[in-house]
Amino acid sequence: MKAYQDASLAPARRAKALLEEMTLAEKVGQLNQRLYGFRIYERKCVNGEDTIELSEEFRQEVEKYSGLGVLYGLYRADPWADKDYETGLTGVLSKKAYNQVQRYVLEHSRLGIPVMMSSECPHGHQALDGYLLPVNLLAGATFDPAMVRAAYRVSGRQLQNMGVDFALMSMLDVLRDPRWGRSEECYSEDPYLSARMAEAAVIGMQESGPEVVAKHFAAQGEGTGGVNASAARIGERELREIHFPPAAAAIKAGAKGIMAAYNEIDGVYCHANRWLLNDVIRKEMGFDGIVMSDGVAIDQLDSMTGDNVVSGALAMQSGVDVGLWDEAFGKLEEAVRRGLVKEAQIDQAVLRVLTLKFERGLFEHPYLEEEGEIHMDYAQNPESVQLAREGLVILQNKNQGLPFWENQASGKKIAVVGPNADDLYNQLGDYTPPLRRDDGITVLDGMKLIFKESDIRFSQGCYLRKRDENLLKEAVDTVKNSDIVICVLGGSSSRFGGASFDTNGAALLDNAAADDKGTLMDCGEGMDCSDLELPDAQLELLKALKETGKTVIAVVICGRPLVLTQVCELADGVILGFYPGPRGGQAIAEVISGRVAPSGRLPVSLPRSTGQVPVYYNYKNSYRAMTYMDEEAGPLFPFGYGLGYGTFEWGACSLSTERCNVAALENKGLTIRFSVKNTSERGGYIVPQIYVTDVAASTVRRVKELKAFQKVWLDAGQERTVSLQLGKEAFCLWNQKMKYVAEPGVFRIELSDSAQTIWKGEFTLCI
Amino acid sequence: MKAYQDASLAPARRAKALLEEMTLAEKVGQLNQRLYGFRIYERKCVNGEDTIELSEEFRQEVEKYSGLGVLYGLYRADPWADKDYETGLTGVLSKKAYNQVQRYVLEHSRLGIPVMMSSECPHGHQALDGYLLPVNLLAGATFDPAMVRAAYRVSGRQLQNMGVDFALMSMLDVLRDPRWGRSEECYSEDPYLSARMAEAAVIGMQESGPEVVAKHFAAQGEGTGGVNASAARIGERELREIHFPPAAAAIKAGAKGIMAAYNEIDGVYCHANRWLLNDVIRKEMGFDGIVMSDGVAIDQLDSMTGDNVVSGALAMQSGVDVGLWDEAFGKLEEAVRRGLVKEAQIDQAVLRVLTLKFERGLFEHPYLEEEGEIHMDYAQNPESVQLAREGLVILQNKNQGLPFWENQASGKKIAVVGPNADDLYNQLGDYTPPLRRDDGITVLDGMKLIFKESDIRFSQGCYLRKRDENLLKEAVDTVKNSDIVICVLGGSSSRFGGASFDTNGAALLDNAAADDKGTLMDCGEGMDCSDLELPDAQLELLKALKETGKTVIAVVICGRPLVLTQVCELADGVILGFYPGPRGGQAIAEVISGRVAPSGRLPVSLPRSTGQVPVYYNYKNSYRAMTYMDEEAGPLFPFGYGLGYGTFEWGACSLSTERCNVAALENKGLTIRFSVKNTSERGGYIVPQIYVTDVAASTVRRVKELKAFQKVWLDAGQERTVSLQLGKEAFCLWNQKMKYVAEPGVFRIELSDSAQTIWKGEFTLCI
Repeated sequence: MKAYQDASLAPARRAKALLEEMTLAEKVGQLNQRLYGFRIYERKCVNGEDTIELSEEFRQEVEKYSGLGVLYGLYRADPWADKDYETGLTGVLSKKAYNQVQRYVLEHSRLGIPVMMSSECPHGHQALDGYLLPVNLLAGATFDPAMVRAAYRVSGRQLQNMGVDFALMSMLDVLRDPRWGRSEECYSEDPYLSARMAEAAVIGMQESGPEVVAKHFAAQGEGTGGVNASAARIGERELREIHFPPAAAAIKAGAKGIMAAYNEIDGVYCHANRWLLNDVIRKEMGFDGIVMSDGVAIDQLDSMTGDNVVSGALAMQSGVDVGLWDEAFGKLEEAVRRGLVKEAQIDQAVLRVLTLKFERGLFEHPYLEEEGEIHMDYAQNPESVQLAREGLVILQNKNQGLPFWENQASGKKIAVVGPNADDLYNQLGDYTPPLRRDDGITVLDGMKLIFKESDIRFSQGCYLRKRDENLLKEAVDTVKNSDIVICVLGGSSSRFGGASFDTNGAALLDNAAADDKGTLMDCGEGMDCSDLELPDAQLELLKALKETGKTVIAVVICGRPLVLTQVCELADGVILGFYPGPRGGQAIAEVISGRVAPSGRLPVSLPRSTGQVPVYYNYKNSYRAMTYMDEEAGPLFPFGYGLGYGTFEWGACSLSTERCNVAALENKGLTIRFSVKNTSERGGYIVPQIYVTDVAASTVRRVKELKAFQKVWLDAGQERTVSLQLGKEAFCLWNQKMKYVAEPGVFRIELSDSAQTIWKGEFTLCI
Repeated sequence: MKAYQDASLAPARRAKALLEEMTLAEKVGQLNQRLYGFRIYERKCVNGEDTIELSEEFRQEVEKYSGLGVLYGLYRADPWADKDYETGLTGVLSKKAYNQVQRYVLEHSRLGIPVMMSSECPHGHQALDGYLLPVNLLAGATFDPAMVRAAYRVSGRQLQNMGVDFALMSMLDVLRDPRWGRSEECYSEDPYLSARMAEAAVIGMQESGPEVVAKHFAAQGEGTGGVNASAARIGERELREIHFPPAAAAIKAGAKGIMAAYNEIDGVYCHANRWLLNDVIRKEMGFDGIVMSDGVAIDQLDSMTGDNVVSGALAMQSGVDVGLWDEAFGKLEEAVRRGLVKEAQIDQAVLRVLTLKFERGLFEHPYLEEEGEIHMDYAQNPESVQLAREGLVILQNKNQGLPFWENQASGKKIAVVGPNADDLYNQLGDYTPPLRRDDGITVLDGMKLIFKESDIRFSQGCYLRKRDENLLKEAVDTVKNSDIVICVLGGSSSRFGGASFDTNGAALLDNAAADDKGTLMDCGEGMDCSDLELPDAQLELLKALKETGKTVIAVVICGRPLVLTQVCELADGVILGFYPGPRGGQAIAEVISGRVAPSGRLPVSLPRSTGQVPVYYNYKNSYRAMTYMDEEAGPLFPFGYGLGYGTFEWGACSLSTERCNVAALENKGLTIRFSVKNTSERGGYIVPQIYVTDVAASTVRRVKELKAFQKVWLDAGQERTVSLQLGKEAFCLWNQKMKYVAEPGVFRIELSDSAQTIWKGEFTLCI
């Protein structure tokens, strides 16, 4: 028995032993991930049984490198992948396919090295019957990392069950420009909230699931003009303050993979940035996993190198371990031959891949048990809907129109209107597989489900981005005969309306313009927009409904912080739900009915108008952000805002100490303690948030920064004492020498909820 | 005789000798510029003669420091200064006041050190009877540095005549966000064009005028959201590529002063940035003059230091030599006593000030000859109007409606309509003194002047930002009875409409909202805007005029690149004139009439909509800038665009060599030679522009970069051969180690004019 075959040895040792047996070609085969997994098979029905046939391209690839390192997207199903319940992998076929692929690889690998599987999971598995969650931006609005962790634990179980080794999960992008189509993949505009959520997602996923590849690193949320994958022109301090914390948190939580981002930062592509991919994540943050490239991103380095082989070498030298779809990483042999990269560097990357394969037990247990269901019932796994419930944000509640209690609604006519009222895919977000209709609950479905004693009438009113005279008239007629109106507006990241795609799967703009129904996506990857207002057709609909004189509850389902100034003028109640997932309609109806106490808080500031961008609360204290001669100052709604149905009485608040030195702070931290009482007749959440302001510092500070928060449930009448803790990090900054230090001085501490200041105090850090 | 009194010795030596005699208090007095010069006197009429009385504050200040280093703004006149022809310095009184101030200083300075005068001159002297030029943004549109130089030579003569030592001139800001109210003070969005203009302005001013204080350094044009003085969050490479070139050029051209900018860059205020104010400008760029702070900017460092004395020390250590209005630099004595700054550091700054005073001969000739006129006749000094003529940009000319030849116009009725048609101050820009009405020519004046044989009718149509039913009706009636319509729209940076002001003279937003006439400024310092469209009132007017069916020539007079998408749809011809100065109306009428061949080219890209910002042509090749799902891609009009009346035939174009090495490039440069013929019946300008694209490079490059241009006149029928030269710098980039290098490889060379490609070629730089 060779050393690498000895399961009693440590994975790293076995990996090293195996490496010594490998040819350069075999090594290179472990590092490239050129194949699109969803294209390597064809599903066929043979003798009444579903089977798959592996493609010639796949077999050649395995032969070429005598093995396969990682296979991307075997399970991927969406319009780009062109896989659905008829053509893709579902049920027991999924596991059979996995085994078939694994068997082929093992049998055609000289050294018997199993393949690892990577799969998209930005908000649940992008596979047929994948358990889907609301998008990250909604998860951010829950301010409940424990819930996010629980939800990803469910998703992780499913992925593990399907043999996935790497879940590719969006979690590192921080939303700094709402024009960006991938806004929905960010947890927040705030680095601290983003970091807590990234941490929760990693822990949840890895608890009983695959390894996480956290994406994208870094600063993709800071594009120029909000254009996808555009230049992040920021400096190092901004990078460290805003964009590094989620990665640091994900790594600390144990993420085994980091995906480099498409964009460049100040002239250097992330994929060519050794400082970023080595010094920062490995040396500073202690990362010891795999750096994966984004799709075809290494080939894009040709614009720097003019030579694809050089591009591969450059990415490898810069710290990329495993490619994705690119040609360049398939040519690393040539790169070594041409002296562009040392074989030792390749060995290091291969060791990381092999170690993980040993760690995951793939050599001992390469195959899946084929029995057992993949599909997960949403009723039995309610984490997805629970996230949605907690992440809906009530922006406005004129005349206490909400909740519309079920008993109050009994026998009443409820008009459910609008282009997003009954379009399942429009509530799911981008990176979504085809869904079984039974798994989804639209707002219309949800209203029928909850308001069983009411007369629910539906009317579409308009297309997403196009008016229609007949639809409008029909909607107005419906509304005129109703007692209350639920008008569901917003955007769509649905690829199911006829989108076309770029080589990396991003949606192309081409036929958005040609879309005469106005139903195509206006958000999601590749769908950046220059106007954050709702489309005219939707505003026209809302105006028409308003003119009927009925009470109008607007529900906005979308993937980015839109300008809702006009919506708030026209509607009585406004509920914002960033794509709330398959059961989002149920959660929305529950919130409308008061069954669920709304508790979401904005994880992003909402702009008052497009021309105000960027909008975020944590701007520098050196200027008056969002202040113009032709617009009211400040955002329409700030970060942290969100109404509930209850009333709370906040009691005394105090600090554990008003001054101490850094050592004491490191030892004990600073505790903010306060009491709060639910003075209403129903249970509800509060979301106390602690903001810190550094009053004088050696570099320019932000007006305030979130440093702690907690979501707290209080039963009707309940009183609680709540403690929030600040550590040294809450007082640190990157000084002029780019050292992370806590400088002595005065700090303002603010306790707030829903953007209302509850208490303010001062803390002094002594020398 | 003391050494410093010996005029035969070199200024630096004399300065050193004088320094040795000085107390610390006297030294500090040379460095602070706390006074607002326009407030140190009261003008009185005694025995029928205008005299001035010096204020107690002034006298105390001179006493306190036994002298005065530099006095800001003695001549300043504007609504903030509250000085006009009744209360301010004009004619011979100006010089008398100068002498009176100088005499007081000399007589109350123990060592007899004369004072230097600094004065605002962002586009001519901001003083009564100051010779005014169009704003920088229009100067940028001329693409004619020689003309800019000539114009500033005139301005410099006037300033010298008034005893001004330092002309504070905007020239370093590069326009990267059109929402910024100070857009007008930038020459361009492009660093190369900005640099050529800065160089020309410095040389012109210093040829026979005062020293230039070039402002502001650095990156003020890169604010967040276009908000004034906001955080420039960019990295060092962006800073070097875009924002440093104008400063390098100004320094190379001999500028003796650099003013630090208000903003911070990636967390470090410019005024606290030793790398910027010492390493970059002195060590890299070779600057040996004075670094001046911006108004009260040093006191703003209190937000970092929490202590005004520390702020002064910090600014001094960071490289600031002379303060402005701040308290902190008046406390440098205490800073030395507290050990916050070494006296040697203060000595160095004082030496710089004293050396300049000796160089300027102030010790030998402290007083002005009081005879002679200050006012400069615009007809005899036509450089201002010539700049305006060359800087007007024809954006659109449907059906060749332009020019409207005088003979064609003879006997016709011309309607001159719009809020900017006859408002002199609205065509001047910010930082403008009160103007004698005779010195100004509005568009209405200009039309009457040029179209002597036509019937000119005026109607205002609307207020700048407010509709008025009667005005609109009157305008439509006027237009219905006319043959052609000149509709003059735009913005205003006029402080003469009732603006209120911040401590540093920037306009406050406060009463913009309360302005019920809608006549207040919407551009200029402090007047950032979130919507780049013309105000609704103006668009409504234009629509109403369009509906009359008449040919409408829209003239837009403004201070920033506005969104003119609707204007171009509604009007036949569109002329854009960034505030064209006192004789702007004449220049516009001359261009309309065809007397002047229009030759302006856009120095900035015009956005298609506000949500597209930032808009500039030289974006990185790493992404698709200005591309959104809901908007046409690209700007409405790109950088370099501008129509003329003539037709030109471009002949063969060739490179002097298609490949060479760096040494040969440094020796001989690369010459692009082409022939061109004016095939029309009138003389006209072309503005050939050379753009270079680095095809593959070690850092991400821009899609193209302007590297040479020339404005060339051709008589009717004339044919010329033109040569443009590229040096090594045209091929340099800041590599990953932040070295400025020319990397071997292929470069695309493009010759274009008015955004039309005339020729494309390739050049290879060999090893």
